[in-house]
Amino acid sequence: MVYSVIGTGAIGGYYGAMLAHGGHDVHFLLHRDYDFVREHGLRMHSYQGDFHLESVNAYSSTCDMPKSDVVLVCLKSVNNHILKELLPPLLKEDTLVVMIENGIGVEEDILEMIPGCQLAAGLAFICSAKTEPGVINHQCYGSITIAPYNVKDRKPLETLLEDLKESGVEAAEVEYDLARWRKAVWNMPFNGMTVAMNAQTDELLKNPSSRAIIWEMMLEVVGAAQALGVKELDESFAQKMIDMTEVMVPYSPSMKLDCDFKRSMEIHYLYSRPIEKAREAGYEMPYLEMLERQLRFIDERNTRK
Amino acid sequence: MVYSVIGTGAIGGYYGAMLAHGGHDVHFLLHRDYDFVREHGLRMHSYQGDFHLESVNAYSSTCDMPKSDVVLVCLKSVNNHILKELLPPLLKEDTLVVMIENGIGVEEDILEMIPGCQLAAGLAFICSAKTEPGVINHQCYGSITIAPYNVKDRKPLETLLEDLKESGVEAAEVEYDLARWRKAVWNMPFNGMTVAMNAQTDELLKNPSSRAIIWEMMLEVVGAAQALGVKELDESFAQKMIDMTEVMVPYSPSMKLDCDFKRSMEIHYLYSRPIEKAREAGYEMPYLEMLERQLRFIDERNTRK
Repeated sequence: MVYSVIGTGAIGGYYGAMLAHGGHDVHFLLHRDYDFVREHGLRMHSYQGDFHLESVNAYSSTCDMPKSDVVLVCLKSVNNHILKELLPPLLKEDTLVVMIENGIGVEEDILEMIPGCQLAAGLAFICSAKTEPGVINHQCYGSITIAPYNVKDRKPLETLLEDLKESGVEAAEVEYDLARWRKAVWNMPFNGMTVAMNAQTDELLKNPSSRAIIWEMMLEVVGAAQALGVKELDESFAQKMIDMTEVMVPYSPSMKLDCDFKRSMEIHYLYSRPIEKAREAGYEMPYLEMLERQLRFIDERNTRK
Repeated sequence: MVYSVIGTGAIGGYYGAMLAHGGHDVHFLLHRDYDFVREHGLRMHSYQGDFHLESVNAYSSTCDMPKSDVVLVCLKSVNNHILKELLPPLLKEDTLVVMIENGIGVEEDILEMIPGCQLAAGLAFICSAKTEPGVINHQCYGSITIAPYNVKDRKPLETLLEDLKESGVEAAEVEYDLARWRKAVWNMPFNGMTVAMNAQTDELLKNPSSRAIIWEMMLEVVGAAQALGVKELDESFAQKMIDMTEVMVPYSPSMKLDCDFKRSMEIHYLYSRPIEKAREAGYEMPYLEMLERQLRFIDERNTRK
């Protein structure tokens, strides 16, 4: 099995390094860190044990990389348009492309961009950060679920799951729509509200007014999912997400970090697409629609040159 | 006619001083500025001409003030509970109390607090500020409309309108519900959104996403008013408010100033009450409800000791 990782950051760096450390053949596309990683390899600082990959298959262009059985895409979704150029050199007939990104509608757009491409969603449950070039800091959790989107040949998928587990990563297969919408139950309220209110998860749950907003938004996501036929998702899952967040350390989700560092926010796949899909099914999400518009205002001001 | 002004700030100071300058018998309740105004009077810096009231009827307690024909109440509505003590010493059988405050439900609550009290709403269309003790800075506009709420004896109301006009203030009588809800069409979107987005009116209209929020909120106010029987209010008035704001200088509404100076915001009468009234009539205002909750979060953080 040949593995490629597009986007060797906090997420791609972690899962790629784990597979490589497990003895698998992994090829990393790098951008700013290319020279550094080529020379010094990748370092993992993990609560589960540190390691150092001294020699790494590092590339600055996918044209130099081998055709791959599995490609892990770990970009910010705001950059997905570059996949039209980046992906094709890596693809064979049965290559599985795993989109480890946030949001709704990601795989649909990649399939339109690269017809025939076999896709799965990867849902990472992890706290990790790339703290300096070539260094992944893995703080907690680390599991991943893989949700096949249009997979015909199950071989690469099943091998990927085996290889991840053998390499020390908890991994499992899940149903696509349920997985994407479950993740949205947490992501849609907390990513945007931590930005709009300039607050962390704990403050939003402590104040009764912001907590009511979070809850209302979770119900909107559950309602949208049900309107779209994801019947297994219900209010009890929303309650579980509240309970889980309440025992978490105060947390800034990825969109809050993007905002703080004046990077573009992933508004399109985290908000616009699910809102649009729900509307097509006759379901309105007014709180989340207003939040989306607030985020667009903030994003425009934040990234203005 | 005996006039009293409760709250001698940017608004009460302006209309009270205009009446006094016009030769009327006006009595001012003051708080922090009492000593200063007693000694130095009130100064008006106005684009329509400056003047100085050298000797002012200044009081620090309504118990020392004369029974009045008209009382102009110009407090922040967050302080309305103190009217239960402040108003009774001023009231005779036919006293007219004019509530020059923002929001919906103000007169209803005062009537419950002081049964039998004759009330009107005063809607000031003015830019003014109290820049230092005893100094009112009047930058533009200046008209006022008076909307009788439960007026049986029209004499004080009509005299007030005459006296205002004679004193150089454009004044007219308007219908209560229409007046309060028309004002809400502008107030509800712009007061809260300038706070939530930390932006002035012009930025909110320039960005298409925040403009869409403002427009949606205006439609919610129009819809609520219609559900409550105010049929004269329609979308064309909302459009007029957008057009007017577009030609205004960049503006921070009173709630934005309250927030910036870490004063309590008038969330109750500007948001909670109209939302509640609309809901009782079967009409939901989801954007404004979410904004109200965001404002409560911001207010709590902002005024925390």
